[in-house]
Amino acid sequence: MRSVTSLLRANRLLSLRKPLFRTPPPLTSHPTKKSFTTTAPHYKFQISLPKRKPEVNMGSDMTAKNGKPFDRAALEQLMKRRFFYTPAFDIYGGVSGLYDYGPPGSALTTNIVDIWRKHFVLEEDMLEVDCTMLTPHEVLKTSGHVDKFADWMCKDPKTGEIFRADHLVEEVLESRLKGDKEARGVKVEEKEEDPKKKKKKVKSIPVVKLEDAVVKEYEETLAKIDNYNGEELGLLMKQYNIKNPATGGELLPPVAFNLMFQTSIGPSSNLPGYLRPETAQGQFLNFQKLLEFNNQAMPFASASIGKSFRNEISPRSGLLRVREFLMAEIEHFVDPSGGKKHPRFNEVKDVELELLNREVQLSGKTHVSTTKIGDAVASGLVDNETLGYFLARIQLFLLRIGCDPKKIRFRQHMANEMAHYAADCWDAELLTSYGWIECVGCADRSAYDLSVHMNKTGAPLQVSERREKPLEFEEWVVDIEKKKFGPKFKKDAKTVETALESLAEDLREKLSLDLSKDGKIVIDVPNVGDGKVELTKDLVTIEKRKRVEHTREFTPNVIEPSFGIGRIFYALCEHTYWSREGDEARGVLSFPPTVAPTKVLIGPLFGQKTEFKSYSQALKAKLRKLGISSRIDESGVSIGKRYARNDELGTPLGITIDFQTLEDNTYTLRDRDTTKQVRGDIDQICEAISQLVEGTASWEDIAARLPAFESADAE
Amino acid sequence: MRSVTSLLRANRLLSLRKPLFRTPPPLTSHPTKKSFTTTAPHYKFQISLPKRKPEVNMGSDMTAKNGKPFDRAALEQLMKRRFFYTPAFDIYGGVSGLYDYGPPGSALTTNIVDIWRKHFVLEEDMLEVDCTMLTPHEVLKTSGHVDKFADWMCKDPKTGEIFRADHLVEEVLESRLKGDKEARGVKVEEKEEDPKKKKKKVKSIPVVKLEDAVVKEYEETLAKIDNYNGEELGLLMKQYNIKNPATGGELLPPVAFNLMFQTSIGPSSNLPGYLRPETAQGQFLNFQKLLEFNNQAMPFASASIGKSFRNEISPRSGLLRVREFLMAEIEHFVDPSGGKKHPRFNEVKDVELELLNREVQLSGKTHVSTTKIGDAVASGLVDNETLGYFLARIQLFLLRIGCDPKKIRFRQHMANEMAHYAADCWDAELLTSYGWIECVGCADRSAYDLSVHMNKTGAPLQVSERREKPLEFEEWVVDIEKKKFGPKFKKDAKTVETALESLAEDLREKLSLDLSKDGKIVIDVPNVGDGKVELTKDLVTIEKRKRVEHTREFTPNVIEPSFGIGRIFYALCEHTYWSREGDEARGVLSFPPTVAPTKVLIGPLFGQKTEFKSYSQALKAKLRKLGISSRIDESGVSIGKRYARNDELGTPLGITIDFQTLEDNTYTLRDRDTTKQVRGDIDQICEAISQLVEGTASWEDIAARLPAFESADAE
Repeated sequence: MRSVTSLLRANRLLSLRKPLFRTPPPLTSHPTKKSFTTTAPHYKFQISLPKRKPEVNMGSDMTAKNGKPFDRAALEQLMKRRFFYTPAFDIYGGVSGLYDYGPPGSALTTNIVDIWRKHFVLEEDMLEVDCTMLTPHEVLKTSGHVDKFADWMCKDPKTGEIFRADHLVEEVLESRLKGDKEARGVKVEEKEEDPKKKKKKVKSIPVVKLEDAVVKEYEETLAKIDNYNGEELGLLMKQYNIKNPATGGELLPPVAFNLMFQTSIGPSSNLPGYLRPETAQGQFLNFQKLLEFNNQAMPFASASIGKSFRNEISPRSGLLRVREFLMAEIEHFVDPSGGKKHPRFNEVKDVELELLNREVQLSGKTHVSTTKIGDAVASGLVDNETLGYFLARIQLFLLRIGCDPKKIRFRQHMANEMAHYAADCWDAELLTSYGWIECVGCADRSAYDLSVHMNKTGAPLQVSERREKPLEFEEWVVDIEKKKFGPKFKKDAKTVETALESLAEDLREKLSLDLSKDGKIVIDVPNVGDGKVELTKDLVTIEKRKRVEHTREFTPNVIEPSFGIGRIFYALCEHTYWSREGDEARGVLSFPPTVAPTKVLIGPLFGQKTEFKSYSQALKAKLRKLGISSRIDESGVSIGKRYARNDELGTPLGITIDFQTLEDNTYTLRDRDTTKQVRGDIDQICEAISQLVEGTASWEDIAARLPAFESADAE
Repeated sequence: MRSVTSLLRANRLLSLRKPLFRTPPPLTSHPTKKSFTTTAPHYKFQISLPKRKPEVNMGSDMTAKNGKPFDRAALEQLMKRRFFYTPAFDIYGGVSGLYDYGPPGSALTTNIVDIWRKHFVLEEDMLEVDCTMLTPHEVLKTSGHVDKFADWMCKDPKTGEIFRADHLVEEVLESRLKGDKEARGVKVEEKEEDPKKKKKKVKSIPVVKLEDAVVKEYEETLAKIDNYNGEELGLLMKQYNIKNPATGGELLPPVAFNLMFQTSIGPSSNLPGYLRPETAQGQFLNFQKLLEFNNQAMPFASASIGKSFRNEISPRSGLLRVREFLMAEIEHFVDPSGGKKHPRFNEVKDVELELLNREVQLSGKTHVSTTKIGDAVASGLVDNETLGYFLARIQLFLLRIGCDPKKIRFRQHMANEMAHYAADCWDAELLTSYGWIECVGCADRSAYDLSVHMNKTGAPLQVSERREKPLEFEEWVVDIEKKKFGPKFKKDAKTVETALESLAEDLREKLSLDLSKDGKIVIDVPNVGDGKVELTKDLVTIEKRKRVEHTREFTPNVIEPSFGIGRIFYALCEHTYWSREGDEARGVLSFPPTVAPTKVLIGPLFGQKTEFKSYSQALKAKLRKLGISSRIDESGVSIGKRYARNDELGTPLGITIDFQTLEDNTYTLRDRDTTKQVRGDIDQICEAISQLVEGTASWEDIAARLPAFESADAE
């Protein structure tokens, strides 16, 4: 069992999109701990996050596809052995947080992206764009990334070591709690991750019993660890006497470290730029052109697939926290006035999602409730139809690529996790051995992004819509007699004019009456004279006039589903990994045929013999024509070993060419998951493969119509 | 007509992959100009590049698809209007050399990449990898990029302006030659490109007649402009009195500017890194893992598709010279001992290529000869089968995506263009209005890349091959008596031992005889004593021994086809662009259906009417099931206008839904290129579309079997 606070932290630990402007952390000081203050008096929002009881399986207790305990070490070994991925620059010693994808990993990614494109872009005519990663300073200054996209780090001035402050506090407190448990005689399970690092960094876990109140305080601090700012983290480190775990050396106070990679564009070094931290900005900046491309029709969505970058302070957790990663982001632009309806919502309203809502989290529970998205929107739990539509579509996508339905949930952001402008936000989380991992964020970002760029550049990132019926209305208009106005007020003329313009509608009406009655009015104009200005009839007139508006202008709101493809990739591998009974060294990755890196293994029994070779080649060519990828394995090892190799590569189907093939042109076809085989002629086999890959037939269907074959070669 | 030297420069101007270690420029001083010296005495190779006569159409004379003069301005306007691409960060004023691709551009790129992957990766079981763009300093130091991947720039100390030295010299000399022509009464055509920039930078073209000898000298300098190093460019600037064209101000001497974007990985700034300038390095570094993945079998190829970066000093030429670009690179690893044969060479040997070989270029001509690749390899013109195989495959790819066969040629690198280690190198060049543009480089890079990384890291980037028959041989072995050797030579022991180990085979034999005869030998050991060391029998023995080698180790050679996808994209647009007779404002992009961004326009005659809407949706859904992308255009404009819009988007097919459709469920199908229409029921129309998109039928086939339809709505 992991500590009771782990669940909440697991939720946050690996947040995909760093919230930019989230409402700050809760500052209610708990009675058992010293209170600390903040210099930010505008921090209003306070909640207290009680302890959480994990009610679903946590990572370390996670079961594999076959219900057996999940063995992460075995999977990661397999993935490196089969070159799904590898630390980048390995032969140069590697760079943490950078990974290369080998052939199966690259193909798996390509297939996930391909399905993503079909499922979202093509299905809904989204406007896909491909924008540059290099981004000038000004753009990211406007978006808020330059100022807020940072983590807190502290340095050991003696050793030069750098720690991510929240991670350090977390690590030390966890270690103390563990020591406390041991002191209390509770058996503590060793964490699998980073055993080397742990040993190196933390000298040894102090087996020291803590006061009950201290335990409680530590647990509460850990539960809120993602919410502290730098100053608060610094105070925590003082309060809890947290130092360099390896040397005991004093650390400098936390400083903000911006997570963007900086560079300089052009030769003169006067155009600082960054590698984009997300693909979204390029889509916002091109809004006008996209709207025009869409013939001015609303709503519409743009989409982008590409690499983004985040200069993590000390990346861990393998593929889940990396410095360069593939994202797929959708920006759905919608008119905020119509309740953010979605025309296709009806198609998904009965999709059932596991929802972990804000109230449940606040009550300290993690109980998910299975809810039809139609009901969730109707009850107001999910803010609007468009957001709900995408939550359902995200789930359908995750299922389509093969994620385990029992390991998908949608967690609503707590109010203090969200940006202040966000209307609602849900993360699609996938359960992995690292806990529940945010793999897709789906936020209603309101009009924030378009507004800031419009305000900065003046570009009309807006929709101008012709009203079906022109809007007619009357309004009080203030006119001034410029010729006399200037000479009278001189340098104050502009100020007085502005004061007049900003008069409220009802006040204008009253002043109009005064003016016709008294021939003059007095208005408040701060900083001019004594703050009161008298205006006579010859200087100003106020009258009611009719106005007709033919167009309506509005800034669209944005619903943003944002996918971390690398995280989905990794979670999918965990979800589909298992090992056969009695053969635990041999892993299987049960990818659905559509995402599997290679669909078919062609295994000629005696691959080196010319007659077998020509059969393999012919078969491969035939499959290629059908658009099905295959791999010939002519190596001298037994067919069983070759199957095992391809089970690890997730290849769903295997064809054997044996002596009988040479006689009657029949082949055996093997199903990866059941290891059952059938036999058929080339047309039957190819038809079966096509149907299995397209998903129009299951293995059971195939096994029902083609004769079973018992392999002579033991698997 | 462009100047006679333009052709050569056009060849070089936009070189895709900056040669890293090319043999340096010719230094023979021409009699008519002052000679200049170089500090690099090891520069041995000298050739003189005579003037070239362009014998094929140059850019400005280029004809469009329909034989009419090509209008670049119209195409670029179309591409921006239809959002194929746009300057990135446009609303922030833009950043030169950075472009975003809009929906049609993004789809076109995706389709080109998809065909590339099928044509190369899937067709030949290449091992695709996806490596990081962030690359640590050390890797690119080893590869040579840190030291050599640079251009020369010079700064105006007063204004701060920065010029790329070779471009500046070129621009000024060209301008003077133009002035000379005008002075001689020759009409000079205005260049279309950058009229604003030109006007701003160069005050006015000096209409000054030059001496004939000076004209000749300028032209020769221009012909060699890409070959000068910084010092030489500085001397040219002095010699020709080249200053800031705008202000006349003195410029500082050229300094090297490395073209890689630099950044810092991690928080401590002690790991400098760059954005990769090519995808190749990641493939080299993973060689061992790739070889293992391939079951140790040779030859094999890896491939990678991804963005690379180049911090151009002052990018111009639109999409042809950008700072962030998509590359697709293949590294084909081959055993150098077997003559670099390719198993599938026979399949392509009759493919005919337009080859512009080194000798023809040296003779000052640009005559291409149509040659079967089989003959070119047989005659030795193309170095080996593997290189030849890829040249043919590159051409087949370019044709497959729709490039004009008359605008493709392969130009062999001159000896001084190539890296010193390269065996042979050919560029696939596409003719555009900017001249012949290198779009694919195809080089035999020998064992260079693997060797440098192996030498640096010690990782065995080698193949160890079991010999079919063990190699038995005798060799002279030197043994030393360690116990006595150390005490005798003390600190020099290691030096003496190394000297012994490096003795040549024939010398060992002689020394062995001396030793048995005299009981001692004397060998040369520089830096020890007087450089001679005497060794007695008790210290050393030399004897002949038999050795058996079961494995053979070798460093594979690399054949590298490297594709600039953005350049191919742009050239393809030029190759497929034309405008209809009498309707020049209306462009057509005749992409083949496979690469076209959208395959089908669905144009309901009255798109806003509900009954039409449902037909459109049903048709779209049906096409989606067939895997065919379509776009519904329900806008109120005439169907002719909608066709025109989609001609510009390169949509090959259009379906109209009219009143007859509502009656009998028939549709019209329109061919973009001929504007002819046929009519059929839904199954006939969908079958026709499938066949056209798959390339199994031509429009003529369809028109022959379905009745023609005359549109009531004028186009």
